[in-house]
Amino acid sequence: MIPTLEWLPTGVNFLDQTKLPLEETYVLATDYKQVATVIRDMIVRGAPAIGVSAAMGVAIGILRSEATTIPALNAEVVIICDTLAATRPTAVNLFWGIGKIRDLYNNLAASGTSIPEIKEAVVAEARLMYDEDIAACKQMGQFGADLLPKEGTVLTHCNAGALATCGYGSALGVIRAAIERGHKIDVFADETRPFLQGARLTAWELMKDNIPTTVLCDNMSAHLMSKGRIQAVIVGADRIAANGDTANKIGTYGVSILAKEHGIPFYVAAPWATIDLATATGEGIPIEQRAASEVTHSNGKQMTPHGVAIENPAFDVTPAKYITAIITERGVLRAPFHESIRQMAEMPEPERILAKA
Amino acid sequence: MIPTLEWLPTGVNFLDQTKLPLEETYVLATDYKQVATVIRDMIVRGAPAIGVSAAMGVAIGILRSEATTIPALNAEVVIICDTLAATRPTAVNLFWGIGKIRDLYNNLAASGTSIPEIKEAVVAEARLMYDEDIAACKQMGQFGADLLPKEGTVLTHCNAGALATCGYGSALGVIRAAIERGHKIDVFADETRPFLQGARLTAWELMKDNIPTTVLCDNMSAHLMSKGRIQAVIVGADRIAANGDTANKIGTYGVSILAKEHGIPFYVAAPWATIDLATATGEGIPIEQRAASEVTHSNGKQMTPHGVAIENPAFDVTPAKYITAIITERGVLRAPFHESIRQMAEMPEPERILAKA
Repeated sequence: MIPTLEWLPTGVNFLDQTKLPLEETYVLATDYKQVATVIRDMIVRGAPAIGVSAAMGVAIGILRSEATTIPALNAEVVIICDTLAATRPTAVNLFWGIGKIRDLYNNLAASGTSIPEIKEAVVAEARLMYDEDIAACKQMGQFGADLLPKEGTVLTHCNAGALATCGYGSALGVIRAAIERGHKIDVFADETRPFLQGARLTAWELMKDNIPTTVLCDNMSAHLMSKGRIQAVIVGADRIAANGDTANKIGTYGVSILAKEHGIPFYVAAPWATIDLATATGEGIPIEQRAASEVTHSNGKQMTPHGVAIENPAFDVTPAKYITAIITERGVLRAPFHESIRQMAEMPEPERILAKA
Repeated sequence: MIPTLEWLPTGVNFLDQTKLPLEETYVLATDYKQVATVIRDMIVRGAPAIGVSAAMGVAIGILRSEATTIPALNAEVVIICDTLAATRPTAVNLFWGIGKIRDLYNNLAASGTSIPEIKEAVVAEARLMYDEDIAACKQMGQFGADLLPKEGTVLTHCNAGALATCGYGSALGVIRAAIERGHKIDVFADETRPFLQGARLTAWELMKDNIPTTVLCDNMSAHLMSKGRIQAVIVGADRIAANGDTANKIGTYGVSILAKEHGIPFYVAAPWATIDLATATGEGIPIEQRAASEVTHSNGKQMTPHGVAIENPAFDVTPAKYITAIITERGVLRAPFHESIRQMAEMPEPERILAKA
């Protein structure tokens, strides 16, 4: 089990993903501000992991509060939620995770629950969300496994694995589930510039599981597709609009076009919480711009001439028309996505996965 | 004038492109083996520059020979040519450059020319090829400039600039010529993993010329195309088959597909010597595989887990159907390329450019 993040009596413990693969070190966040820093600095990253981290951040903020009245605590909760919401704009899971704890808090506070009981309840909820995230990944694996080839090579971009979730992974969870069913799958991992989530994180976690993995530069997949060396593509998602347009790590959109041009299926695996019904199309998804230094520098050394301009969008949007299917823990969505998403949204919300167990 | 390479009385002087952009240092190759090392280690790179470097390598090998008889010199020339030919497999210009000097040598040796006269002649020929390469780039610029937008952003991949030629550049030469004609052009330079020719070399030489340049990771261009921020793509070539299929730096093929998908013209600029009439289609072009360490390490630090498998093809092939036009110093080729190339090949070879001047 890869310890992406963990609730401890002392705080939230995060595997420092900026130090992988060569160093396995941890950062213990003991208050909500430290959780915000951990998210902003990408010590934890990946939409599902960010969602649960943010939920735990709100919970720890409430837990550590010294407020003795509900009005005082209300004011603090607003600041806690605003601080966590300002960390990263694209992954809707961040706002979902914050909202889940905030809504629970607001309900309890309005219904006269005592502050100690509120604290206990929000921490329990955040920890349940953690368990549910892992269960959702495993369910995605069950729904998605047979979409992958019985034998072949699957390309993934960025890291939508155990490290991007609370465990098992979304896209990599589907790969794991297929292998558990006996599929013979090799993985090609795009290195994923500039942060190298593929080279550093995907390769690290797949090698831990003895899944055959090859790292390639982002610009090599078209060549390998043309040689018949890629049978499917599967990626995660940071936000899926109501029409199926999918924001994911920069470069995903390009891969989707290459897959279409070569007749290769292109799958998205993401928990239902990634679907943002309030955003009609990909046009409405904000794209985070990150610091130029991620592109200009490598291991502290400058690679580019002084003063050159830099583009560094962290995400792009893959229009629904390039997506073969979206795999969620509620089932597999197919085109037309605006209809399949609406239909699934209208179904009664499933019982909480762990509550069933 | 960017001093990519230069014939000096002491040897061939190369700007060390592995050290750019932050260090401007030179490597003086005083014999043919050193020239071969300079080519293999990518101290000089870029198909046209490799072609002239190889010609100078054969010339310096002959010049430095201590053979006193033609049979002895013949045997040495075979070894010299074989050594230089074994450096890099994809760019046909390497074999063209070697062949030009070898053929001249063989003609002179067979016709009873004295060894001192042969030495003088092969050195003069290699130096003339240098001047012709610059003249060819300027001529490509004249033919290609008006294909570029009057105002807009042009994407380029890798470095097909002054640093990839003896000066001025092929793809970047067309951009320079368009700007000299008053076009308002900004350049997006793909960083071009793993060797970062775009981030290091293209950015460096364009900034020297005050051409507005932005560096982006290779996986970002699709996103920028979708936002209408790229009006044309222009790249160089390492080998063009008789049907127009074009080998160029890894990643070029992917960019060509993205350009087609977004309705953006995709141009190749390369000297006529890059066209390999003996290779019918791209299938016949050998693709160099380079060391895994180019991908796994950055500035001496390992970025990937120990022992992970790596893909590192240095080139890919863009099928002719994705190419809008091929710009050479003899004129602009259009589809169907197998016909336009054949027609141009059947035209009388133009007078040597410098001989006219």
